[in-house]
Amino acid sequence: MSEKNISMAVIRRLPKYYRYLKELLDKDIHRISSKELSNITGFTASQIRQDLNNFGGFGQQGYGYKVSALYDEIGIILGLNKVYTAIVIGAGNLGQAIGNYAGFKNSAFNIKALFDSNKDIIGKNIREFEVLDSKNIKDFIKENNVDIAILCIPKDGAQEIANEIVEAGIKGIWNFAPTDLEVPDNVVVENVNITESLFTLSYLINENN
Amino acid sequence: MSEKNISMAVIRRLPKYYRYLKELLDKDIHRISSKELSNITGFTASQIRQDLNNFGGFGQQGYGYKVSALYDEIGIILGLNKVYTAIVIGAGNLGQAIGNYAGFKNSAFNIKALFDSNKDIIGKNIREFEVLDSKNIKDFIKENNVDIAILCIPKDGAQEIANEIVEAGIKGIWNFAPTDLEVPDNVVVENVNITESLFTLSYLINENN
Repeated sequence: MSEKNISMAVIRRLPKYYRYLKELLDKDIHRISSKELSNITGFTASQIRQDLNNFGGFGQQGYGYKVSALYDEIGIILGLNKVYTAIVIGAGNLGQAIGNYAGFKNSAFNIKALFDSNKDIIGKNIREFEVLDSKNIKDFIKENNVDIAILCIPKDGAQEIANEIVEAGIKGIWNFAPTDLEVPDNVVVENVNITESLFTLSYLINENN
Repeated sequence: MSEKNISMAVIRRLPKYYRYLKELLDKDIHRISSKELSNITGFTASQIRQDLNNFGGFGQQGYGYKVSALYDEIGIILGLNKVYTAIVIGAGNLGQAIGNYAGFKNSAFNIKALFDSNKDIIGKNIREFEVLDSKNIKDFIKENNVDIAILCIPKDGAQEIANEIVEAGIKGIWNFAPTDLEVPDNVVVENVNITESLFTLSYLINENN
């Protein structure tokens, strides 16, 4: 891909389109206008057309969108037609939950191993995985061409782990550690900051009452 | 609070300021200029001043911000000086992880119970909680004045549960179910869509390679 100028706002709407299109397919709806898509998604019809035009546009004047074709195309744009090898770093509750979730959710993500530095957990089995020792992460990444590291550890130490896995050749970090990671340009970081989301909720509850 | 015109973009930056200010306090830094704050946060100094001015502004020309005072003020704006009773609905891996996380993270959130509809889990103990039967959620919310429901269930059935808990008087839903919930205006929903985040990561990895 080389659409370097797509804004993050557009990029973040793509998985939403993908989800809504899947729901339409599940309901056996195979054709949809941008106006109907607007009603479902809450985005304006012109926003939708503009978003999709970034990738060549897929609708036909007077026909609308073919749901399955658009779903497939967006899947390809999202890179979901490929397979990514991934590891989970931090085998606590969150690491187990996220690894499990990502692995089941979509065959595009192939979880290879869980790592932890806690001696009490190393060697134990969590579902089909034996928890491996964090000190072997670098070798594992190199030997298994791991694409994605799912970071489910506290903020302290997260940057050090990031440095290690970057050096080992990781392409992307899905970061649940509540801290900003510094990585070189050839590595992508996607943050999920659960605490920030919780605090946003408490703000909104107070604003609303 | 009645700052009804604060944009969501500003609101979502508040927990970030809060996090950065905590990190400064942890490093024993007690005074900071908006320029220095800009270096740390990545937001522009003018953006920071503008954001904080929404709530009355807290800086002094030539002095900057007093870190602890600003931290406390933002905590109050976020409503973190109050205590919220919360329940987790869905006691699977994710529900356990999130409940645990939210409970430990901040004493503002007091997790009261975990609910599940799976007969195999109901009655079991997960840390200090016995997993309760989902059919009793409504009564529990009413009897315990529960403020927040943390929804960690699949998308199917999520809207029905939302309808129930809204009727029982819930104020906010922290929604990890990958679907949009329809709720009345007096109820707040904060979505955490983990799948969308994962798909954004795969897009970015492909764009970057």
